Amino acid sequence: MFVSNPELRARGLAVFEELFGGEAMAAVKRDMDGVCPDFIDMTIEWAMGGITARPGLDLITRELVVIASCVTLGHTVTQLRAHTQAALEAGATKEQIVEAILQIQFYAGGASVRNALANVKDILQAAA
Amino acid sequence: MFVSNPELRARGLAVFEELFGGEAMAAVKRDMDGVCPDFIDMTIEWAMGGITARPGLDLITRELVVIASCVTLGHTVTQLRAHTQAALEAGATKEQIVEAILQIQFYAGGASVRNALANVKDILQAAA
Amino acid sequence: MFVSNPELRARGLAVFEELFGGEAMAAVKRDMDGVCPDFIDMTIEWAMGGITARPGLDLITRELVVIASCVTLGHTVTQLRAHTQAALEAGATKEQIVEAILQIQFYAGGASVRNALANVKDILQAAA
Amino acid sequence: MFVSNPELRARGLAVFEELFGGEAMAAVKRDMDGVCPDFIDMTIEWAMGGITARPGLDLITRELVVIASCVTLGHTVTQLRAHTQAALEAGATKEQIVEAILQIQFYAGGASVRNALANVKDILQAAA
Amino acid sequence: MFVSNPELRARGLAVFEELFGGEAMAAVKRDMDGVCPDFIDMTIEWAMGGITARPGLDLITRELVVIASCVTLGHTVTQLRAHTQAALEAGATKEQIVEAILQIQFYAGGASVRNALANVKDILQAAA
Amino acid sequence: MFVSNPELRARGLAVFEELFGGEAMAAVKRDMDGVCPDFIDMTIEWAMGGITARPGLDLITRELVVIASCVTLGHTVTQLRAHTQAALEAGATKEQIVEAILQIQFYAGGASVRNALANVKDILQAAA
Repeated sequence: MFVSNPELRARGLAVFEELFGGEAMAAVKRDMDGVCPDFIDMTIEWAMGGITARPGLDLITRELVVIASCVTLGHTVTQLRAHTQAALEAGATKEQIVEAILQIQFYAGGASVRNALANVKDILQAAA
Repeated sequence: MFVSNPELRARGLAVFEELFGGEAMAAVKRDMDGVCPDFIDMTIEWAMGGITARPGLDLITRELVVIASCVTLGHTVTQLRAHTQAALEAGATKEQIVEAILQIQFYAGGASVRNALANVKDILQAAA
Repeated sequence: MFVSNPELRARGLAVFEELFGGEAMAAVKRDMDGVCPDFIDMTIEWAMGGITARPGLDLITRELVVIASCVTLGHTVTQLRAHTQAALEAGATKEQIVEAILQIQFYAGGASVRNALANVKDILQAAA
Repeated sequence: MFVSNPELRARGLAVFEELFGGEAMAAVKRDMDGVCPDFIDMTIEWAMGGITARPGLDLITRELVVIASCVTLGHTVTQLRAHTQAALEAGATKEQIVEAILQIQFYAGGASVRNALANVKDILQAAA
Repeated sequence: MFVSNPELRARGLAVFEELFGGEAMAAVKRDMDGVCPDFIDMTIEWAMGGITARPGLDLITRELVVIASCVTLGHTVTQLRAHTQAALEAGATKEQIVEAILQIQFYAGGASVRNALANVKDILQAAA
Repeated sequence: MFVSNPELRARGLAVFEELFGGEAMAAVKRDMDGVCPDFIDMTIEWAMGGITARPGLDLITRELVVIASCVTLGHTVTQLRAHTQAALEAGATKEQIVEAILQIQFYAGGASVRNALANVKDILQAAA
């Protein structure tokens, strides 16, 4: 049912591979298999190819604002962890990620910030 | 009742002045006057001096993650506008701000993104 | 269509009258007239008669936790203002209300707290 | 302490039984036992008997809008799963449920949608 | 910068025209002009052509779940009003819309429901 | 990097010890160790020493409004449980805590209230 766009697909797959790697793709496919496989295509072509691959903002900053949004939502722990790993892949330092999370304490609240820091601790420590 | 810390105060006032300017300080004081003046000190010494003034992440990125948090909350339009202006003062381009807001479309939702873009349009156009 | 319970109705009207007064009832009726008048009955019998009128917690504290919930939601400004007035009617001091809002700064975030304090300023000042 | 209304109770129990079955009632009772048993009565008489049992909207659509609200809240996974099962009991197809969740992607955000789809996958597959 | 897909574009424009009409398109263009015109294309091709135009769920129900999501978010009043009008255009009755909003009272909260009903009152009354 | 204030530190440690005890401090330190130890100081000096230790509102009520904020956020289960224990330490009765959570049902929604009651059940039962 999904109408694919070859150009967006190519861009999206390239960004996805760079940020998340092949294992993440397998995980999304496993999650969506038998429920809504089209969601994978929307992620690849729209979110990745259509937005993340745009010029005008570097990949590190794109990942840091996504992390900020996930910390603020609070319940999207899977995505918070995936984009913390992606930020590291894009070249962010552990310190930049910690400071980005800490920076939104007066907006998302300290409780959300503490939970976020605790939730990504192992990823950041493995990267140090 | 507020217990001030001269070092945090000095740092906080410097960052506040750099990002928001003197008119913003007058606005906060007017808002909090007769209700909770201590809130201004908490903003200056904790949020500005204690967090925003930390090393490890540049001011432009700090403002962009705050913008991402405000877009995700949705109802903090006053802060979204203030930090859009602050991002510009810190040296962000109009394009970087637009891309940062657009980037969180698959996390905060498209409705929040559209409203945010419409709410900061005049600030971005005045800066162009 | 609403199935009324005379006992809950009596309790609810008494609490509503004590906390909000007759003008608030007129405002709810005006809002819901021609859309969903049953919503008024749900508010009176369930929220007021069935919950707020329960023993086990004093009215001042009941109003302060409602205020905390409204500050956290962020977008329910009408209710924040109504319950600030109600807290005063129940006997809360201006200082208790300000401290209750300030207390949740590390949970709801400082931006929500600042907007809440600014939004109830006139009510608190009129009460001083 | 709860003031019961026999008519709402009868309606509520009928709807609850139709949508959730006896096991769900046992689960709610187990959760609330020793904490707040009145909450079960509020659920039965107000949420079920007083709202879900109303005419004017079919049960399938009532369940789909509740699912949409749970996806948007993000953290109410228990309720999302219960109402997905309830939607199926009411006669919704697996496809209708998936499309309803997918439809709010530009409002609740893609991350909430993906997590919701993954969280109800086993229920939908068991129903196919 | 936006990579268009003619098939999605055609589908999206047809759905948009059916649900919102030409004035809404002018409003979106005015909002996004000079800020992020690509956002309009994302709305048309992804949200409308790629999701709302999918088979498997009727347009009335699609609009009602979007309304439920907007009521739950609370701050997206512009979208709540637009989709209430769209639900009517799709053929929903005033009663169905009111019941859909009322149905999520125990998920989004009564305050959000009351504000939503008040915010769409004029649209529903004009349609009666 | 954190700039400490001895007076706030002393106040904060006293309140923290009174409300949460030594084990909670060990848990925060374990969570933040190797990620962001400064966050512990912010919690002690700002949230505890700078806000919770203020006069004007008793500790029981301070804990109840924090609980209300956590119930409304929904995803901060760790904090909800910690502050439920803290409310008991401050002298709140089990009934006051249950009523405070129940009171916000029409603001945070019944689903959030049910999940909160279930999440603190063991703490309240151990205290009875």
